[in-house]
Amino acid sequence: MDRMTSTPARRPATTREGAPSSGLDPEIAARLKRSPDGLLPAIAQQYDTGEVLMLGWMDDEALHRTLTTGRCTYWSRSRQEYWVKGDTSGHQQWVRSVALDCDGDTVLVKVDQVGAACHTGDRTCFDAADLGAVVGEPPAARAVSSAS
Amino acid sequence: MDRMTSTPARRPATTREGAPSSGLDPEIAARLKRSPDGLLPAIAQQYDTGEVLMLGWMDDEALHRTLTTGRCTYWSRSRQEYWVKGDTSGHQQWVRSVALDCDGDTVLVKVDQVGAACHTGDRTCFDAADLGAVVGEPPAARAVSSAS
Repeated sequence: MDRMTSTPARRPATTREGAPSSGLDPEIAARLKRSPDGLLPAIAQQYDTGEVLMLGWMDDEALHRTLTTGRCTYWSRSRQEYWVKGDTSGHQQWVRSVALDCDGDTVLVKVDQVGAACHTGDRTCFDAADLGAVVGEPPAARAVSSAS
Repeated sequence: MDRMTSTPARRPATTREGAPSSGLDPEIAARLKRSPDGLLPAIAQQYDTGEVLMLGWMDDEALHRTLTTGRCTYWSRSRQEYWVKGDTSGHQQWVRSVALDCDGDTVLVKVDQVGAACHTGDRTCFDAADLGAVVGEPPAARAVSSAS
């Protein structure tokens, strides 16, 4: 059965206190600092190689599902629905760990990515558009380079 | 000289077309999809170890400075000002590369991080709060584990 067909496509209503109503552990929910639209950026990283694969968005319920099902669930801002990564493409993200940052406003999800993370077929969403940055040179490197 | 003292603390006004007025290459600016407040999430990653260090926010001008100065500049949403990472703490981020993602709404900045990236003194902002996720088991691993 397609996992998506059994889950609500719309985000649940918020409670009177403004926190989204979801299955998320209230102790975790209390630590989150959400954007005005109730979301957190979620960085997906390949657990063993360290590749940064993509950035998605999670509301409380998406985070709850990611923490409890072993698969990454995101909230699609463009489609306004939950999506379980890989349900359409077959390129699942199997969860290894999830960490909240020091400010409570970002999560880092270490995953085992099947195939390409990017909808373009690239392994990561950052493979195609290097912006040609000037490389910074730390003072130590500068000293070595002027000594040589 | 403190680099911050010579740069405007307020974000520049937007142009008539709605795009922020900044020194950013217009060809790059045209590819960006910004949040309603004109920002992009920027993931900072240690270039050699792959550690995800932190997530900050950049407007066009912060991205321009990051691309051209060799140091990471972010826009502080709480203080509403630019900050050059490490100007206060000494923990600079020296830029190695900057890539835009496939949707144009996130940047990945590979850096050489001096010392701790996190204001708590931790190496990364994700070191202190593991959320205890259920580990997902890919079908192949499942088959191996049931065969053993």
